This record gives sequence, structure tokens and C-alpha cells, in this order.
Amino acid sequence: MSLIVQKYGGTSVGTIERIEAVADKVKGFRDAGHDIVVVVSAMSGETNRLIALAKDITDTPSNREMDVLVSTGEQVTIALLAIALQKRGCDARSYTGAQVKILTDDAYSKARIQDIDNHRMRADLDAGRVVVVAGFQGVDPEGNITTLGRGGSDTTAVALAAALKADECQIYTDVDGVYTTDPRVEPHARRLDKITFEEMLEMASQGSKVLQIRSVEFAGKYKVPLRVLSSFQDGEGTLITLEEDDDMEKPVVSGIAFNRDEAKVTILNIPDHPGIAYRILGPISEANIEVDVIVQNFSEDGSTSLSFTVHRNDMKKAADILAKVAQELGAKSTVTDDRIAKLAIVGVGMRSHAGVAAKMFKALADENINIQMISTSEIKITVVIEEKYLELAVRTLHAAFELEESPRVE
Amino acid sequence: MSLIVQKYGGTSVGTIERIEAVADKVKGFRDAGHDIVVVVSAMSGETNRLIALAKDITDTPSNREMDVLVSTGEQVTIALLAIALQKRGCDARSYTGAQVKILTDDAYSKARIQDIDNHRMRADLDAGRVVVVAGFQGVDPEGNITTLGRGGSDTTAVALAAALKADECQIYTDVDGVYTTDPRVEPHARRLDKITFEEMLEMASQGSKVLQIRSVEFAGKYKVPLRVLSSFQDGEGTLITLEEDDDMEKPVVSGIAFNRDEAKVTILNIPDHPGIAYRILGPISEANIEVDVIVQNFSEDGSTSLSFTVHRNDMKKAADILAKVAQELGAKSTVTDDRIAKLAIVGVGMRSHAGVAAKMFKALADENINIQMISTSEIKITVVIEEKYLELAVRTLHAAFELEESPRVE
Repeated sequence: MSLIVQKYGGTSVGTIERIEAVADKVKGFRDAGHDIVVVVSAMSGETNRLIALAKDITDTPSNREMDVLVSTGEQVTIALLAIALQKRGCDARSYTGAQVKILTDDAYSKARIQDIDNHRMRADLDAGRVVVVAGFQGVDPEGNITTLGRGGSDTTAVALAAALKADECQIYTDVDGVYTTDPRVEPHARRLDKITFEEMLEMASQGSKVLQIRSVEFAGKYKVPLRVLSSFQDGEGTLITLEEDDDMEKPVVSGIAFNRDEAKVTILNIPDHPGIAYRILGPISEANIEVDVIVQNFSEDGSTSLSFTVHRNDMKKAADILAKVAQELGAKSTVTDDRIAKLAIVGVGMRSHAGVAAKMFKALADENINIQMISTSEIKITVVIEEKYLELAVRTLHAAFELEESPRVE
Repeated sequence: MSLIVQKYGGTSVGTIERIEAVADKVKGFRDAGHDIVVVVSAMSGETNRLIALAKDITDTPSNREMDVLVSTGEQVTIALLAIALQKRGCDARSYTGAQVKILTDDAYSKARIQDIDNHRMRADLDAGRVVVVAGFQGVDPEGNITTLGRGGSDTTAVALAAALKADECQIYTDVDGVYTTDPRVEPHARRLDKITFEEMLEMASQGSKVLQIRSVEFAGKYKVPLRVLSSFQDGEGTLITLEEDDDMEKPVVSGIAFNRDEAKVTILNIPDHPGIAYRILGPISEANIEVDVIVQNFSEDGSTSLSFTVHRNDMKKAADILAKVAQELGAKSTVTDDRIAKLAIVGVGMRSHAGVAAKMFKALADENINIQMISTSEIKITVVIEEKYLELAVRTLHAAFELEESPRVE
């Protein structure tokens, strides 16, 4: 018998029928002897409906009141799921974030969890009850309702699992696990049985949308075994663990992540002296624009150029800021490009394998795909390429690193 | 400058436009220098929508979870009203019942208020904020969400007014005050400028639906001046006060209340000896059937008969119980009649005026309306008549006691 925290997202509880299906699933785990804490999101569409009501009044509602408003979405789901469990003879009790209580800071709409009181949950579990908790929400030290921001229900589940020292935290979603890459781009993509937290974080930060980054960080920090699996079909899903396999057969690369959300901004012919990067990127950062990949060219004649990627929505704003900076620096010009894509191969195996980058670059070169920017970390190699080559590049690398071949030995 | 607690019901906040109209009204009071606490219900239809979701799962959801579920209705409204007030430059803050906190017992779905903490509200009022509170809900000593039952928002408003020692509690509704009788039956019905708590209670208990009985009791107990007025049109409404007018011109009868909700049950030819009423009504009460008017006939030959009224929905259940009792007592038979109506004239002036009953009975007799049952209290005379005569009886008495004539002098 083990203690499992399960999280079901908005799609999984989107209708009464689906809530009943979740209740069946939970009852199955209870009947198998497990203690269960369930975290649920708002029924799909509900959060947007609530936001639309507020937007009918004003485009700039206060964050405090928005949190009071949208937190009702999960509150509806916890009550309905508890009712569905009770109907099945499964004793259950629902709690809002404030009731648990999940203590957060007072940063409305993007609060961070500071502490979780596990006493009430513990008492209910000891009494044989299923505990149903509203995801995504908490309460600040003053008793105000807060929310963790979109996707925060994953974080709630992981935080509860950490607070209860649960044996596993299961995130039920509409996919059946983490794949080597997006199956819509590469039909031969393969579900991974296991992936490390580090790899998962790199995959997520590169655009793999299966889990919220914060929840993975949290799980890694508190060593909570995390499993991603499907609400709608049976299966083992993907386990996200601390341990690396030391199996010899372990592939070097675990997965390929990519996104089309970014744009490239370049400032040409800037004087090559200390502090120049800061003079350029400082104003960008002050404007709250997040910068991702940054590349500075080799200086040839005392002048250089600097390229970086930002979210496409921020491209114009960044270019406007750079135009001013360029004038101050006597730089030649700035160039923007939103027809790029970012692509990364990820794998803890890279640490102990040489030649991974060379293999990646050769595979792309063989298909005449030009690499515009390169950025590397210990377990990841990121390249920026022209957007139109993205699908070809993903399939090429998926094949080159034999991700679809034989199932990973574990 | 005074402190006013205002309550707006579901119809008054039924759409975003109406919530904005309420915000305009509240801002008007703020601009006039008053401190305002607003209590709101769920948007009309919302509570029923939530109940329907639960009923899709089971017909017997637990009361605890139903309270978690339906309390979200008011929570949505408080956030939206606070947002609408802020948009008007009116600083505002919303609170759920638990946040205030409104402490209740743990009788889910029909909890009773035990205590109200006024500190947070006081601090906000002192800071110049409008305080927006969710009606109908509270929290038990264990931190579980409770609701006060339907219509409980009126009670919340009165209780907050008592806790804050407010100068007035204003209940905004879809009628513009308390009338001498239902204007749909008697077009000449007149709005009362004032009515005493006692009269209001008797009117409410006889079917006048303007205010919840509990809220009137509460207001009377804590001496909270209560005013009923329209959300949709300007006017002074009706003030419900402790003081009786000692004006000589004061009419004897203030209003006529009636309802069609009851049925009459009679048990014939029962032995006339002590304890017989208990042997009949005891089993009825044990079955949780509420009995209203009770009349026992004059005994002629050592046997008597007993009639009483119950809610029409309980008639069959009551008759079944009586059938058994009748057998035990050797009574002749039981008779039921659901074609009755109950009608009452109410007025504190009756205390000092003789002949009111006689005048009432004569007026009805003049129209050939037979009186089946009579029950009197200090400020009320109730009769049960055949249902088909109800409208005629109301209009006859309204005219007989000159309720439509000249406006009441105050």
C-alpha cells in the first residue's frame, strides 16, 4: 500500500461523465489499497468563461479579485468529484487551497507556495478518506485567496506529494507520456518509460508542453517521483526520476524538443569592447523582455555583432529598443527575423559521450539545413534554423540518434 | 455620514450590466459620504446551474459537498462587483463568508450564524474601501464551508449590520417595498412606508415573500433598522422598525397575507379526553411534518374532531400516518382537502382595537365566503377558506379595512 497524489487536468474533468470516469479510476486505486489525494483543475472552458465575465467589465481587473473569481473553477470540480466518489461508496472530502491550507506569498495570479499544512489531509487519509484538493490556488498570510498562475495545478500536486512524502505523484493528462519528440511532426516518435528531471526540464524549457516547468523543478527539488500518464487510456506513462540509468545501452539523446515561438534580433557592427553586451541587453531586460539564445560573433576588425532570440510577441518592442541603443553605440544597423525555429537535442548521456554535437551538425548539413545560432549546455544542444526546415530537421535528428529504433533498454 | 449594509439579490446581479448598475448605485452612496458594506447573492440561475451539475451525478449528494459547490456562486459575484467598483475609482475588496469570517454551526445547507468577526471589514471601511461580502455562506469551527440555506443572503446582511452596528440594513429586491397585500391579486394594494418587525414577521410567515423570516427575526432581535427597496427604481421602500406609531390615525390592519401552499387534514370522531391531540400530532411531528393552523371542535357527545393544515407536499404522508392513528383511537375516518387557502390580516393596531375579528368575519360572510378554520394571535387573525374564493376574499378585506384609501399618516 502506498500514498499516491494524482492530478487530473481540465480536459480530464471537462464534463460530468469525465468526472465520473475519474471517480472510477480513483476508486480502483482505493480498492487496490492505496491512499489517494486527488488534485483537480477547473472543468475545461470554465476558467476562460470566468475571465470573460471580468473582461466584460474591464480589461484591467485587479489581480486580487481575479484570483477570487477564477479560484471558484476548481472549487466546483472538487465538490463534484467528492460527490461522485461518495456515490461509489468511496468516502471523500474536498478542500480548497485555503482550507488545506496551501500557504503562498501574496503575488496574486502568480503566487508561489511557501508552506503546506498536511494535518487535515493526514487525518482524512487515516480515516480512510480520499482527499480531493483544488489545484492552482492557495491563500496568503492575510487570508486572501491566491492563484499560482495557469498550469499551477501540476505544481499543487507535486507540492502536496512533497508535503505528504507521497510515494508517487501522477499527472493525468491527454497524452500517455513523454515522447522522444512531438508525434505530430515525427510519427515514429516513441514514448519514454523513464526520463530524468534534468532532461524533462530541458525538454519543457524548449517547448515540450507535457508538464509545467515549475512542477518539474519542484519535483526534482523535493525528490518526488513524478509520472505522466493518460486519463483516457491505460498505460504506465513516463516516470520522471532522479536516477540516471547506467545501462550501457542507454542512448545518448533522450528526446528532441522544438518551438516556433521565437524571433531573432541582431545588432551589427558594434565596437568590440568590455561591457558592450550589457549595454545592449540591459535595456532589453529592463523592458521585461526575456532573452533566450544569445550569440556574439568572433571579432575581426575591432567590431562584432550580437544576436539573440526573444518571444515573437516581443520582437518589435526589442527592435525599437535596439534601434536607440544602436544609435548610441554607433552600430551599423539592427536586423530582425521571425521566420526561425529553435531545436534542441536533450540527454543526460551527452555528459559521457563525445561527438554528439558533431553528429548533430553533420546530420543537419547532410540535409542542407543551415544553422544560424548554436547554444550548448551540459545535457542539451540547441540550434536555431530557418523555420521552414523544422519538420525535416526533427525527423532527421530523430533518425540520426536512433530514437525510434529499438525500445530503450531499462 | 452613516454606515449602511446593502444586500442585492440574484436578480439584481443577474447580468454583467446589472452588476455594473449596482456598482453605480453603491458609488452614489459612497460619493454621498456613507460607508458601505455590500452583500450579494449568486447571479440568478447560477445556484440552480450548480445544483443541476451535482444532480447529474446523484440525487443524494452530501450536504457538505453541496455547500462547497454552491458557495462558488456568490464568490463569483463578489469578485465581479469588486472589479466593477474598482473600475469606477471606488476602492473595494471582496470577502467570502469564510474570509470575513462568518462563523456558523456545522449544519451544512442550513447553518446558523454564531459569530461574526468585524475586524477585517472595519479595517477596510476605515481605509475608505467598500467591503463586498458573499451572502448565504459561512464557515464552521473546523473550517468547513457552510451555507445558510436559500434566501440566506438577507440573513447575512442583517447579521453583518448587527455585527458592525450599522445605521441601516437595506435589502434591494425586485419589488419596491412591502405592500398591504399582493398587488397581483389586489391592484389597489399600497406600499407601506413603515411596518413593525412583528407585523413583518406575521406577514412573512403567512406567505408574503419579500423577506426571509430569519432575517426579520434577526433584525428584530438585534434592533437593526431594515429597509426593503427596489434595485431597479428609486424610492424610499419600506422601513421595518421596532417602534409602533402611536398616531391616532394609524389603521388597525397593516396588511393582508395569504398562501395556497397548505392542505387541510381532519380526523373525525375521536374520543374527547386529555392527551388526544398529542397522540394525533406527535406522530406527525416525528415524521418532520410541520403543522400550521390547528382547530379542535367543540365536543358534543364525548367525541370530537381535529383539523390541521400542513404543506400540500406533506398531505399524503400526513394522511397515511393519521390512518394508522385513527385505527388505534377507534376514530371514524380521516378527510383531506388541498383546495384550501389561508388568509390573514395583520396589524399591531389590533391590540388596542376591539371588533376586528367580527368586522373580518362579517365582510367575508357578506360575500358568502365560508370560513373553515380560524386561528388568532395578538396581532393577526388567520382564516382558512375554500381556495376559489381567495382573490375575492383578499379584495374584500382590503376594502373593508380601507387599506387602499388615504396614505397612512406617519
